[in-house]
Amino acid sequence: MNLRHMGILILMACALASGAVGAEDAARWQPLPTVAPAPADNPTTPAKVRLGKMLFFDPRLSSTGTVSCFSCHNVMEGGDDHRPVSIGVEARRGERNAPTVWNAAFLSVQFWDGRAATLEDQAKGPLVNPLEMGMTSLRAQIFRIQRIPGYRPYFEKAFGPGNVVSMDNAAKAIAAYERTLITPGSPYDRYVEGDHSALTARQVRGMRTFAAVGCASCHQGPNFSGPPLPLGQGFFVKFPLYPQSPYVAKYGLMKDLGRYDVTHHPAEKNVWRVPGLRNLVYTAPYMHNGSVKTLPEAVRVMASTELNRTLTAEQVGDITVFLEALTGPFPRQTMPRLPPTPGDLLGR
Amino acid sequence: MNLRHMGILILMACALASGAVGAEDAARWQPLPTVAPAPADNPTTPAKVRLGKMLFFDPRLSSTGTVSCFSCHNVMEGGDDHRPVSIGVEARRGERNAPTVWNAAFLSVQFWDGRAATLEDQAKGPLVNPLEMGMTSLRAQIFRIQRIPGYRPYFEKAFGPGNVVSMDNAAKAIAAYERTLITPGSPYDRYVEGDHSALTARQVRGMRTFAAVGCASCHQGPNFSGPPLPLGQGFFVKFPLYPQSPYVAKYGLMKDLGRYDVTHHPAEKNVWRVPGLRNLVYTAPYMHNGSVKTLPEAVRVMASTELNRTLTAEQVGDITVFLEALTGPFPRQTMPRLPPTPGDLLGR
Repeated sequence: MNLRHMGILILMACALASGAVGAEDAARWQPLPTVAPAPADNPTTPAKVRLGKMLFFDPRLSSTGTVSCFSCHNVMEGGDDHRPVSIGVEARRGERNAPTVWNAAFLSVQFWDGRAATLEDQAKGPLVNPLEMGMTSLRAQIFRIQRIPGYRPYFEKAFGPGNVVSMDNAAKAIAAYERTLITPGSPYDRYVEGDHSALTARQVRGMRTFAAVGCASCHQGPNFSGPPLPLGQGFFVKFPLYPQSPYVAKYGLMKDLGRYDVTHHPAEKNVWRVPGLRNLVYTAPYMHNGSVKTLPEAVRVMASTELNRTLTAEQVGDITVFLEALTGPFPRQTMPRLPPTPGDLLGR
Repeated sequence: MNLRHMGILILMACALASGAVGAEDAARWQPLPTVAPAPADNPTTPAKVRLGKMLFFDPRLSSTGTVSCFSCHNVMEGGDDHRPVSIGVEARRGERNAPTVWNAAFLSVQFWDGRAATLEDQAKGPLVNPLEMGMTSLRAQIFRIQRIPGYRPYFEKAFGPGNVVSMDNAAKAIAAYERTLITPGSPYDRYVEGDHSALTARQVRGMRTFAAVGCASCHQGPNFSGPPLPLGQGFFVKFPLYPQSPYVAKYGLMKDLGRYDVTHHPAEKNVWRVPGLRNLVYTAPYMHNGSVKTLPEAVRVMASTELNRTLTAEQVGDITVFLEALTGPFPRQTMPRLPPTPGDLLGR
């Protein structure tokens, strides 16, 4: 069974389940693991994480030398870029809201449309996207990195001696760093691990409402992005499921066809990977098009478009304060030191 | 005596001295202080440094939310942006090479043309420069910061309670952080403090040549940017002093009139603040227009245009390895945590 079919199956299962999963089933609440899973061919090592952090923060990986992974995935804040849609090299606007890199390691597929199976694959996308980092090819990208001689020792520490300054290794290192960008230990996590003082009474009520009204049908699992699946097997849903919702026109939610643009399968029009819900306090504005500006409005939109429900003001408020309990803590990070630039690396 | 006249006087003194200062005088070698001086009305405090670091790294201080102080002053590398000229919001190209922020605290005036007396004044410039961070006014800037509620507690910790989320305080905090961005303890500093093993024999020979041929006439003092002067009193030179040098046309060194564009004083055409020489390994390409790509070539250009000398290959090599000894060490820094963004802060 290939990735696409798995995606469709899960989409169908999810749609069927949305009425059936009640508070009890959904209440198998899970804390975030304290270590992110890594693929067998890229175990996380300190040397890879160190190199990956350097590459993640290095704007010289873009055509103009001005845009790094960090530019749109600001790990000093919400792991996104605060904007409705991102701005890449030469001020080019992207078409979708930058997803947070925090806890991306727990997603079974990457990008809003799930078109990359792993963080390793994902890392290569923005580098050569003309609207993002704008390099003409991955070959041009690794040539750029090779022209910064100070990188070689870090590649060798991470991958051994030899011809190791390669694009695959750069992507592996970036992915290894991203697997350290996780936020276990939020008030929610502490609560489900037994510290009942970690949530307020209203947050606990919001947690129950979140399950009872059906949010947890899709937003389940430790990252609230769906059940654990093998890497590369995506948990997708149709969004909006109820196109008659007034929010659909208001926020232009059907304009982008999502996964259909990857697979061209008619059943996957407006199908999306289920995003996680952690650190939403930091990731406004919301939705794939960045059209929804506040968290309470995002709760109303999702209830209407996915569950065909109009929540009461109290329910919206309760769910919102529960979602706020999924925030942080963010690991303390030191800044990387980047190697020097040859003076002819970048043109005007 | 106003700033402008002081500048001219020093320019004249420097020009006269360039023949007269020999190896002995110039050899009053000074290490970089381990603490940067601060103005009486802005003593450096941990709370200000903490806030200033947040603001320095915050791209929300630009019109598009994509450009921060850090964008062009990359303190993970050379404190500049690796480019000939900078790129600001909407991909607008600036006209000059970004000066490094490392050790800017030891400059007596800021910007290539010395148009700001202090780091506090300097910090306000790029925010409202349409080619840089592009905010329409400092009023719009502080309104933007005030709309991020998470900043208020940090302003209050730094400046006390009350109406303290002001542009002046933001600039003071950024300047306080910048005063921590200093690199004492380089091999050169250790050498002049008595550790004679800190430099190689060739570096010591380069140090003597640097003084003997006249570089140290202007590039003197602990930061190699001129003698210590009261804040706001600049150490300026005409560059090129010898316009007949073939490098002048080759690198377009007279196109930008420098300080003249600030003062409109005819004697200040092509007059510039003397830049420091630390961490040059990290700050290629060189000169106010970023036209010179390598350090040996920069040495040749300066010797020709300022001293009317053609150095031997050995002299150029010796001076280059001496200049390399002015590198680092860079303080280990933790990343700031930035407060959350309201979803309507930034448009498309």
